Amino acid sequence: MASKFVSERNIKFLLYEVFDVESLTKYEYYSEHNRKMFDMVLKAAVKLAKDLLFPIFEEMDRNQPELVNGEVKVHPAVKTIMKEFGEGGWISSRVPFDQDGEQLPSMVADICDFIFAAANYSANTYPGLTFGASHLIESFGSKELYDCYVSKMRSGVWQGTMALTEPEAGSSLSDITTMAEPAAEGYFRIKGQKIFISAGDHDGVDNVVHLMLAKIEGAPAGAKGISLFVVPKKRIDDKGDLVPNDVVASGVYHKLGYRGCPIVQLSIGDKNDCRGWLVGEPHSGLRYMFQMMNEARIGVGMGATAMATAAYYAALDYSKTRLQGRKLSRKDPNLPSVPIIEHADVKRMLLFQRAVIEGAQSLLMHCSKLVDFQKVLEGEAKEKYHLLLEILTPVAKSYPSEMGIQSISQGLQCLGGSGYCDDYPLEQYYRDCRIHPIHEGTTGIQGMDLLGRKVIMKNGKAFLLYINEVHDTIVAAKEFKVLEKFANELNESQTKLQEVTRHLLSIAQQQGPEAFLADATLYLEFFGIVTIAWQWLLQGISAQKALKNGDRKKDINFYEGKMFTLRYFFGYELPKTLGLAKRLRDDDRLTVEMQTDYFND
Amino acid sequence: MASKFVSERNIKFLLYEVFDVESLTKYEYYSEHNRKMFDMVLKAAVKLAKDLLFPIFEEMDRNQPELVNGEVKVHPAVKTIMKEFGEGGWISSRVPFDQDGEQLPSMVADICDFIFAAANYSANTYPGLTFGASHLIESFGSKELYDCYVSKMRSGVWQGTMALTEPEAGSSLSDITTMAEPAAEGYFRIKGQKIFISAGDHDGVDNVVHLMLAKIEGAPAGAKGISLFVVPKKRIDDKGDLVPNDVVASGVYHKLGYRGCPIVQLSIGDKNDCRGWLVGEPHSGLRYMFQMMNEARIGVGMGATAMATAAYYAALDYSKTRLQGRKLSRKDPNLPSVPIIEHADVKRMLLFQRAVIEGAQSLLMHCSKLVDFQKVLEGEAKEKYHLLLEILTPVAKSYPSEMGIQSISQGLQCLGGSGYCDDYPLEQYYRDCRIHPIHEGTTGIQGMDLLGRKVIMKNGKAFLLYINEVHDTIVAAKEFKVLEKFANELNESQTKLQEVTRHLLSIAQQQGPEAFLADATLYLEFFGIVTIAWQWLLQGISAQKALKNGDRKKDINFYEGKMFTLRYFFGYELPKTLGLAKRLRDDDRLTVEMQTDYFND
Repeated sequence: MASKFVSERNIKFLLYEVFDVESLTKYEYYSEHNRKMFDMVLKAAVKLAKDLLFPIFEEMDRNQPELVNGEVKVHPAVKTIMKEFGEGGWISSRVPFDQDGEQLPSMVADICDFIFAAANYSANTYPGLTFGASHLIESFGSKELYDCYVSKMRSGVWQGTMALTEPEAGSSLSDITTMAEPAAEGYFRIKGQKIFISAGDHDGVDNVVHLMLAKIEGAPAGAKGISLFVVPKKRIDDKGDLVPNDVVASGVYHKLGYRGCPIVQLSIGDKNDCRGWLVGEPHSGLRYMFQMMNEARIGVGMGATAMATAAYYAALDYSKTRLQGRKLSRKDPNLPSVPIIEHADVKRMLLFQRAVIEGAQSLLMHCSKLVDFQKVLEGEAKEKYHLLLEILTPVAKSYPSEMGIQSISQGLQCLGGSGYCDDYPLEQYYRDCRIHPIHEGTTGIQGMDLLGRKVIMKNGKAFLLYINEVHDTIVAAKEFKVLEKFANELNESQTKLQEVTRHLLSIAQQQGPEAFLADATLYLEFFGIVTIAWQWLLQGISAQKALKNGDRKKDINFYEGKMFTLRYFFGYELPKTLGLAKRLRDDDRLTVEMQTDYFND
Repeated sequence: MASKFVSERNIKFLLYEVFDVESLTKYEYYSEHNRKMFDMVLKAAVKLAKDLLFPIFEEMDRNQPELVNGEVKVHPAVKTIMKEFGEGGWISSRVPFDQDGEQLPSMVADICDFIFAAANYSANTYPGLTFGASHLIESFGSKELYDCYVSKMRSGVWQGTMALTEPEAGSSLSDITTMAEPAAEGYFRIKGQKIFISAGDHDGVDNVVHLMLAKIEGAPAGAKGISLFVVPKKRIDDKGDLVPNDVVASGVYHKLGYRGCPIVQLSIGDKNDCRGWLVGEPHSGLRYMFQMMNEARIGVGMGATAMATAAYYAALDYSKTRLQGRKLSRKDPNLPSVPIIEHADVKRMLLFQRAVIEGAQSLLMHCSKLVDFQKVLEGEAKEKYHLLLEILTPVAKSYPSEMGIQSISQGLQCLGGSGYCDDYPLEQYYRDCRIHPIHEGTTGIQGMDLLGRKVIMKNGKAFLLYINEVHDTIVAAKEFKVLEKFANELNESQTKLQEVTRHLLSIAQQQGPEAFLADATLYLEFFGIVTIAWQWLLQGISAQKALKNGDRKKDINFYEGKMFTLRYFFGYELPKTLGLAKRLRDDDRLTVEMQTDYFND
């Protein structure tokens, strides 16, 4: 198995050269940090990933979780992982000093998650979900809830989950039927079913804390009647002991991939003895949950990118060492075979992967930067970063999810028949990655979120801010002769994106929401390609600056590689917007008009 | 599990309405057949697929082949399958009457294979490979070889294989090192290693007959030194008994999917006691093998289409029954949920699948028709159909292979989280289908075959014939008002295809083969989309004819569905050629210029 799963060089390029994480340290909140410390954190993350997570990447897949006597048994290493991530401060890397956290910038904390997910996505889910759930309690829960749960979760002793989906309520969350009946003692009696709950039960922790959506009796129909509860697997009784809380793991799914982490079916309150504690106000649960959901969506994008990154390095390693055929210009069969990386078509497949993963990684770090700036800024500036993050979130979730699959598939293809067999890790990455366009809101849902909510929010303010940011990059890129061509191409594409957006908004007015959103998924794809082109132009500027400074030979290879990958993205990926624009401007509403009966034969 | 895996209605539409298989019966060779008989054959094929193959589709996946005591153990049903396919005449469906075959038109025989592959691709590989291998012996082997092997194979008692790949020779077949040393007795002593041999060993038959490439000692280097041998697992000794022939299954691969059929590693002649018999002339093996290879390539396209078809019906079934959310125009949460097929984005995903599978199926039947016409025609006409088949083969192999993956992935997406779990068959289709862009020549190899060989063969004659065929369809479509728009769009695309082709040919002259073929895979993709658009226009013509004849309500749904799917293909898929054309006309040869060192960091 190839030993490399991330590029530390590329991480530093993005952190320090493109997104200048050091600039954060001039703000009070991050003033105790410096580059040396960031480097140490990265080094520790890589070490942990290499020593603990990567070696069991295959093992966790081959020994998938099973339900045994009402409890989900997972790989024994999960206990160690939760302990290490708790005690090592990884679960609380983003938590403020005054809550015993590391108060790291998101840019740094998120890239550590990236490293962990590249080493072993399933393994990183356990602490990742736990932080998100603890953050939700911290943000909206009472002091009592905070005191009871948060430190246990952040020390890795208790697992956190997000418990939303039900048998009849997946994409349509407003249809959940899990009920909460107020009890005199201040808690609620919870009753219902949840499905597809990641890390929803396992024996690697002492307790599982569900952040669960339910409806209080008599609540209004739909999303406005949903409340958020803390529902632990075990509650603390009067003596301070953990006792069962009538939350039963009734099933564990067998999945295509992502097998290191169980997704669990839960029966809640079958004995009428499940207690839940309300978080914040009644009927505000969906709004609260969206904090965790938005973090989770970016987390999915990050995980998808990380997985595709690990797959790329496995494919690259193979392509450099596998000898096969000769260059087309020198086909004499008496000549020795060449490494397949010398064939243009293999280079194309590798460049495609690199263009996707490094483009997506750049976008994700950009999102992290937006989180960081919201923390240190106020007023208009803060709102700007908030709105930019809002509009970028569906893109940061979907582009890596969808294109990560393509990227890994091309990685598998580099290995030919070996890519299809389990002697190499590509087949596992291919299985694992297919979850990403599904969990935390399908790609279809993301498309509707982008076009139906984000683009039109605040009278299009987020969209305008986005266009301005892209435009600023175009202007900056034009300072470099070699980037001018690409700057112009991006300018053309973003102009087309604006035209298409206006066209769709006029459809919304004339023909209503169904026609408006019928091709929202394609709009998302279009938006995604333009966004990644923007990220490549940003990287191009930094690469050009470095090349002008005349770096060392080794670095020159890196920057030249960046420039080729940028050329690849603009040469091979950006043109895909032509077809998308044509379709998005097409007035044939065939997917609206198609009748169910026409699918019969 | 959904019970439908093919559409008999669509099969009959293609067979009788679009490609008019009955027209073949006016030729002497097929004169004993008629529509009634074809219908009976189809009915029998569907019954066999339903009764024998489909019920064990999952079971064969869950119990994958294992190597036990030097023999590969497969699902016990394989023995029954080989017996039924042998005795039922399915292995010899294409074989002439005078060889005890059914002498069916390829259009009919191939569609039966399609039905079998849709029910259970892995299961159909065993008889499929056996026919191909027997056909190779029939075509080029001596009477002795024919008498010894062919009837045993066609009765399903012995398995046939194609044994090409070696550890160091996959895509570059010319580098095989398996050696053949002539023995005085007329046979050759074979020594070497073969890998990735489908059905290369198993306990469902009495013997395995490898059609194996090897080099006779002293043969010239490269492809011109390759010979073809019959190398049985067991040979017949003087007493007429089967005795081991020193061909040992040394390993069986564990694969992502396609687990119902073993792919095997073979050690040949380790004890210096493996005998092989030369087929035809020495050093002509690769040419002979290409008969089986070309059949196999079309077979892969057929299998990929069939698998995606079965996946589509599973997704369609789910989409019709799964209730979730409300129409965007009626979002009141008090209203009942609707079947997800009523959401435009789900209809889009289903139409995408249908556009791919029915477009690909049409192309494959077109290819079958070309085979049939080669059989009944002579001279110039025969050459025309031969050349058309030559140029269409890489497309018929790759388009379904690549787009079948996308189609199945969209099918899986229709099921959301359930698509990712093994309670539904989508995850298996998703794993199974990933083999297709790899086996029988990767997509990269198909691209080079199309652009580097087929487009330029005979001074571009095949390409010109292809363009003429497309053009004839465009002219015919213009007779129907409603098709005019689509005819014009196809005309534009094929004109662009010609321009791009000319551009690439000029690059070949100016810059040599590497620059010429650097984007051959993209050229193949472009060619594929135009070709499937052509197939949709052909289907559109037949649908319009039927609609004009005012068919029954049930049929009207079918034809209207066809028309919507045609609109989908032209509206959503054909525009992809815009981006491809831009790239293919781009003069940045970045994948040629990219240096290996630039992939380092």
